[in-house]
Amino acid sequence: MKRNNFRFTVTMLILWGSLCFAQTDTTQIKDDFKPSTLNQPGQDYPQVNSQGYVRFSIKAPEAQSVSVSLGGGTPLAKNEEGIWTGTTKGPEDEGFHYYHLTVDGGTFNDPGTLNFYGSTRWESGIEIPAHDQDFYALKDVPHGRVQQILFPSASTGTSRRAFVYTPPGYDKELTKQYPVLYLQHGWGEDETAWSNQGHANLIMDNLIAEGKIKPFLIVMTYGMTNEIKFGGLRNFDIKPFQTVLVDELIPYVDANFRTLSDQPHRAMAGLSMGGMETKTITLANLDKFSHIGLFSGGSFSMEDVDKTPGFIDKVKLVFVSFGSRELENRSGRRGGFFGDPKANADALKQAGINSVFYISPSTAHEFLSWRRSLYEFAPLLFK
Amino acid sequence: MKRNNFRFTVTMLILWGSLCFAQTDTTQIKDDFKPSTLNQPGQDYPQVNSQGYVRFSIKAPEAQSVSVSLGGGTPLAKNEEGIWTGTTKGPEDEGFHYYHLTVDGGTFNDPGTLNFYGSTRWESGIEIPAHDQDFYALKDVPHGRVQQILFPSASTGTSRRAFVYTPPGYDKELTKQYPVLYLQHGWGEDETAWSNQGHANLIMDNLIAEGKIKPFLIVMTYGMTNEIKFGGLRNFDIKPFQTVLVDELIPYVDANFRTLSDQPHRAMAGLSMGGMETKTITLANLDKFSHIGLFSGGSFSMEDVDKTPGFIDKVKLVFVSFGSRELENRSGRRGGFFGDPKANADALKQAGINSVFYISPSTAHEFLSWRRSLYEFAPLLFK
Repeated sequence: MKRNNFRFTVTMLILWGSLCFAQTDTTQIKDDFKPSTLNQPGQDYPQVNSQGYVRFSIKAPEAQSVSVSLGGGTPLAKNEEGIWTGTTKGPEDEGFHYYHLTVDGGTFNDPGTLNFYGSTRWESGIEIPAHDQDFYALKDVPHGRVQQILFPSASTGTSRRAFVYTPPGYDKELTKQYPVLYLQHGWGEDETAWSNQGHANLIMDNLIAEGKIKPFLIVMTYGMTNEIKFGGLRNFDIKPFQTVLVDELIPYVDANFRTLSDQPHRAMAGLSMGGMETKTITLANLDKFSHIGLFSGGSFSMEDVDKTPGFIDKVKLVFVSFGSRELENRSGRRGGFFGDPKANADALKQAGINSVFYISPSTAHEFLSWRRSLYEFAPLLFK
Repeated sequence: MKRNNFRFTVTMLILWGSLCFAQTDTTQIKDDFKPSTLNQPGQDYPQVNSQGYVRFSIKAPEAQSVSVSLGGGTPLAKNEEGIWTGTTKGPEDEGFHYYHLTVDGGTFNDPGTLNFYGSTRWESGIEIPAHDQDFYALKDVPHGRVQQILFPSASTGTSRRAFVYTPPGYDKELTKQYPVLYLQHGWGEDETAWSNQGHANLIMDNLIAEGKIKPFLIVMTYGMTNEIKFGGLRNFDIKPFQTVLVDELIPYVDANFRTLSDQPHRAMAGLSMGGMETKTITLANLDKFSHIGLFSGGSFSMEDVDKTPGFIDKVKLVFVSFGSRELENRSGRRGGFFGDPKANADALKQAGINSVFYISPSTAHEFLSWRRSLYEFAPLLFK
């Protein structure tokens, strides 16, 4: 992929992610609000009702204005006790959403909720319970671990952080070796995203407990090696991250975990910008990766296949997914700036490639799309 | 320890932690401010200068008042661009401090900095570089891991989270077994505190790299099992946490990590409330713990020793520490409500107990006291 295309697509992905799908709704709002599952301990607000409306309560007695970015902008009103309250004007999509407050013109987090790293800052987060939330729920099953490692990186002159999911039993079956999935976050997020927002570890624990997958490791590290500030994507260059991932992290993981370190047992996937990174890095390193996943991060066309020697022999799976709202909301242009990813997936399939296309129902460029993508992707790996 | 005493002492510890040691200073403030090392990526403020003054910059153009809790309360002033700025009136103590903003009467975090769990909420954090910061710095040495585990807890009906530090080499020397230190946070903190605020993993990595200690595991879990809200300590009861720790977590760790699981190779320590928990739990379980550390969390008197059968035979180390400001700031009452911990330590020593007393210079009831305490404590363990 040319660098200009990469830059353009990443920029579009960012804009895409910020699009507002809020609806104006005349339905009666049910009075069954409960504290969000992501609230800080002991905090009653924000609250979510069974329809997906969100209600906020912020103490700021002397403030002139308080609004919430969720729901396309939700203004709050002050009551007699100096508490600002309000409810989104429509129900929110199921799943996880980032948001923040605007208090008298300043950007702050909601003191009621936990924070999650997105948009290059720690943002407030809220969870609208999804009808299929069971697959990423914390259950009474054997749990794997999420291990923070610090690995040496000569190219950046730092010790860099990654998280490694090891499945249940990893520390008991001491002769067993495991395949590895390298899994990347999106623009403005970091290596904490797939565990905190994505529940990747719980998705794996549950899939393993149900016997739906063979256990493998997941490695998650920071993919914006040379970029942190909003707008900095002008100068985005895949090389620094590719060097860290391919030349430094992979050898470290293979030396320090019990991996199957050959190409057939190594996969890479990513969401949004992480999907774009995945495409670029895997195409340039097909001797290292056999299974590829792009979650809301572009697709592979036959042109990509044709210009990449060995693609058909070496690539054992191409998985491409989107949230349904990403593809339906572009003024009739099917697929929007992604081209037509379904047609691309079909073309690869006809060429004999193991090509899988998945649409997450009723979700946008957000984490429920990606939790579901991982859930669909994982069972297809390392067959 | 009687429950009423425990409650009283914990309450005093909380008040103690909130005491303000800010000074009014007439020294000229040096203009060498740099972004705090705990700032969020790309954020220029807050800043710290070489004297320990802290400067804030908060955007909130329409706000009526913005102040910062640090420095005994630092009011900010608005400039023409709607940015509120200000500097602490005196230098802050070296090390880590929690703080928050008050914006128009509401409590918010500083959007410039990372958040740390303390006071039962995610608070803003700032780091004043300490003259001895090298011992907890991230260096180019072999690094251990911090492993998030989820362990089953029948007594609370949940899967509970703990973090386990495993030293460098743990995953290579597959027949080696390690001693274990159970290390507790303070009131209002959680199982993330010792890694995030305390840098326990880096302290261990550095001590191991310098050959100053034999490697051991550290296990950190949530110690406020039945209490989360401020004021809830009225009903504090050690039993629920003791059950989780002794009956559930320890057996899980011994079954899932390569531990030396006998009493001589198990230690417990904690800071503040975690020290009080440590004292209570170890005295009731001397068949399980041999090495004990109380960091700003009380001391052992000869009365404690005399009323605990087997103490002298079973306890191989009693380590008690405080920040110097904790003992010097009680209107001449040496030791304040802690009694006289130095005299207690001396009495134990005279009775033939391996009793070590440590004072962290120029620090209060804060994390630099406890980083230093761990650094002093670790080399004494499991000799």
